[in-house]
Amino acid sequence: MAVDSRKLKKSWKVSMSKMAENTFNPIRSIVDGMTLTPNPEKDMIALSIGDPTVFGNLPQPVTCEEAVQESIRKRSYNGYCPSIGYTEARQAVADYVSTPTAQVEASDVVLTSGCSGALEMVIACLADPGQNILIPRPGFSLYKTVAVSLGIRVKHYDLLPERSWEIDLQQMENLIDDDTAAIVVCNPSNPCGSVFSEEHIRDILSTVAKFRLPLIADEIYEHFVFSGFKYHSFASLSKDVPILACGGLTKRYLVPGWRMGWIIINDRHDALSEVRIGLSKLSTRILGPNTLVQAALPRILKDTPKFFYTETLDYIQENARIFYNALREMPGLEPVMPQGAMYMMVGIDMESYPEFKSDVEFTQRLVTEESVFCLPATCFEYPNFFRVVLTVPKEKAIEACQRIRQFCEFHFQPTSPLISGNGYSITNGKHRNGYHAVTELSTEAGK
Amino acid sequence: MAVDSRKLKKSWKVSMSKMAENTFNPIRSIVDGMTLTPNPEKDMIALSIGDPTVFGNLPQPVTCEEAVQESIRKRSYNGYCPSIGYTEARQAVADYVSTPTAQVEASDVVLTSGCSGALEMVIACLADPGQNILIPRPGFSLYKTVAVSLGIRVKHYDLLPERSWEIDLQQMENLIDDDTAAIVVCNPSNPCGSVFSEEHIRDILSTVAKFRLPLIADEIYEHFVFSGFKYHSFASLSKDVPILACGGLTKRYLVPGWRMGWIIINDRHDALSEVRIGLSKLSTRILGPNTLVQAALPRILKDTPKFFYTETLDYIQENARIFYNALREMPGLEPVMPQGAMYMMVGIDMESYPEFKSDVEFTQRLVTEESVFCLPATCFEYPNFFRVVLTVPKEKAIEACQRIRQFCEFHFQPTSPLISGNGYSITNGKHRNGYHAVTELSTEAGK
Repeated sequence: MAVDSRKLKKSWKVSMSKMAENTFNPIRSIVDGMTLTPNPEKDMIALSIGDPTVFGNLPQPVTCEEAVQESIRKRSYNGYCPSIGYTEARQAVADYVSTPTAQVEASDVVLTSGCSGALEMVIACLADPGQNILIPRPGFSLYKTVAVSLGIRVKHYDLLPERSWEIDLQQMENLIDDDTAAIVVCNPSNPCGSVFSEEHIRDILSTVAKFRLPLIADEIYEHFVFSGFKYHSFASLSKDVPILACGGLTKRYLVPGWRMGWIIINDRHDALSEVRIGLSKLSTRILGPNTLVQAALPRILKDTPKFFYTETLDYIQENARIFYNALREMPGLEPVMPQGAMYMMVGIDMESYPEFKSDVEFTQRLVTEESVFCLPATCFEYPNFFRVVLTVPKEKAIEACQRIRQFCEFHFQPTSPLISGNGYSITNGKHRNGYHAVTELSTEAGK
Repeated sequence: MAVDSRKLKKSWKVSMSKMAENTFNPIRSIVDGMTLTPNPEKDMIALSIGDPTVFGNLPQPVTCEEAVQESIRKRSYNGYCPSIGYTEARQAVADYVSTPTAQVEASDVVLTSGCSGALEMVIACLADPGQNILIPRPGFSLYKTVAVSLGIRVKHYDLLPERSWEIDLQQMENLIDDDTAAIVVCNPSNPCGSVFSEEHIRDILSTVAKFRLPLIADEIYEHFVFSGFKYHSFASLSKDVPILACGGLTKRYLVPGWRMGWIIINDRHDALSEVRIGLSKLSTRILGPNTLVQAALPRILKDTPKFFYTETLDYIQENARIFYNALREMPGLEPVMPQGAMYMMVGIDMESYPEFKSDVEFTQRLVTEESVFCLPATCFEYPNFFRVVLTVPKEKAIEACQRIRQFCEFHFQPTSPLISGNGYSITNGKHRNGYHAVTELSTEAGK
């Protein structure tokens, strides 16, 4: 039988789907487009990677290791599990996240392949192509990657650096429209390292409640707050707003590669009964995360000693102080002191660095001359800032600060004589609260 | 500012997305709709679950366990990996799957969360909503679950029980249209346990080559063939057709819960260069599978002793013989002898079981009366058959056969006096190759 020529493809070439085309990782894209050639006379100091295990300087997750080894030895966890995860593991997560004002049961928990898997599943469950979700700017790029991949639009609400990266609630409210399916919040924040106050969380919830929208709370850094600050989950403060909280072992337990995440269904007003079913259905596509780690969850979540957390946090908080105190003295830079997570955002007064057109060029040259790599905050949709990762060994932090100082002193060209220091702030390269331009103090420029 | 009433949702209820709505697991749905109340006087024998670890009777995957223990001890594998997987792990998979006629490099390998993760990623990469993929009937339900979830249509091509479940190539060819993006093949087969001959694989490839379509080869049961039969990967026999092969540790290594799968990009005619990029992009959504198991892959794939495979296969082949020899003697049943994997399909002459309207009712009553549970093959879109899982302990296999015989002898009502046995076959309840209706042998009815 002659082949119907209509059916014969003209070539063997196989196209990728629109979904694949639309799946875009901006950080990868920006970094791949940079020319990163470190100074051969200086060891590379990477302050770019949000992976706390890279330097081997933070506490070893010994309880995690032992718990997984126990799972293996028991020989009971090699088979398939329910696609939403073992009941026992889900109960352990429920116990872990429950608070007096937000009790969680095993049936409210879905286990996923990392927190990325949790965010992907929640976004896929809540929004249709053509709808939109609100996401923070600056903010972690995955929300947009997943949404756009699925044909869902994103709208950015602003965080305010002069208010420790609180949400601009009025601006956020104005973005909401009939097609808004959900709002994503991230606390503590990547890339900002900010921790919302209880009052601000309540304000966010009041705003969202007016529109009866659900919140997607990226809480992968839950409890990751410096001493002197307090962590509140959104669910613990929410009376009305239903919250889908995403979390996991990744950051707090220093095991990002293990891909153990979870979704917590914090229902209010019975709003999420259909979503509950939807998440269970979606979980049947790839059948849940690794069973050895699931089986280890009860032990990990209950038995990890307190000092593991406090040592990690103290280390990072100390680095935050080192970087903050050094960078705030540097001309044309303004760090914003974090209260948790593992990052700090640093503003660049671009007018004082006329050689560089963008934060991308600034950070690229910093690699070329000083072998220090910080991500340009364009990666987080926030130009004229860069992000410092605070998990590096302390001696590298100190060395990095010295090299950044050298770099800044070399390239800084003040637009007018000025005194830098507390009292001025930069938002996206514009001056706010002014400089004090004092001509007779021109010799002190750059201090 | 007064709230714009247009934006205010009428209620708190959050709907699930269309994607979630369209994500449907037929096996779960059918089984949940059955009334499964075992006979309290008989222990349950589950011949339903495609999980070889359930009874603890097959060899322990000792090398797997030791390799993961080693990963943990090294303390180098807790961090993030490249989203397509560690290079070393991908190299190990490339070495494992390479054949003289189909050499594979690390760059041709993408690691995924289980073979389900691999199939989901490949289908999502190759087809757009509105396009279709061809899938086998009977066949594993996940292809349809994933496709329909993504808005991709499916068309079923037939497997022929009288030809050991070979593909009806003419019928398959007639299904192909301008919207066909790819064809899914599964070898060795779930649910059939069939293993295609080299000749049949070549015939399939010739057919597909006419249309210049890519093949998605579900080869999760690669090498899982009984003695006397030979396994051929599609890639090893393909000169022209590009093959995206999906596999993993799941079945051969008896660790389905570990969620370690892979995609092998077997390019021909440079057809898959864009797909290669698409898979890499899609992998950035959930950032790859568990790193501890990835790091263990080189050791698992190289050092698992041969006897681990042969013991497992011999065990299953022995069970296949037990079930086949017993079931073929039972009135109104026709098993189709498998050549690999871990399943056997058994035809039911529904006319001889007038009490039951379907394979679903048949298998449901088998549970009620005999506490034996086999999946009705309606779960695989193939009515009037049921599927037996062959991994059960031998003594349970023998016991199950006795109980099935009892059940059949009790319910069988021959439509006309006949001799059963080799020489007749059933396809979807219709008789093929006829019964020999012999009136004087009526007393032998039901033998």
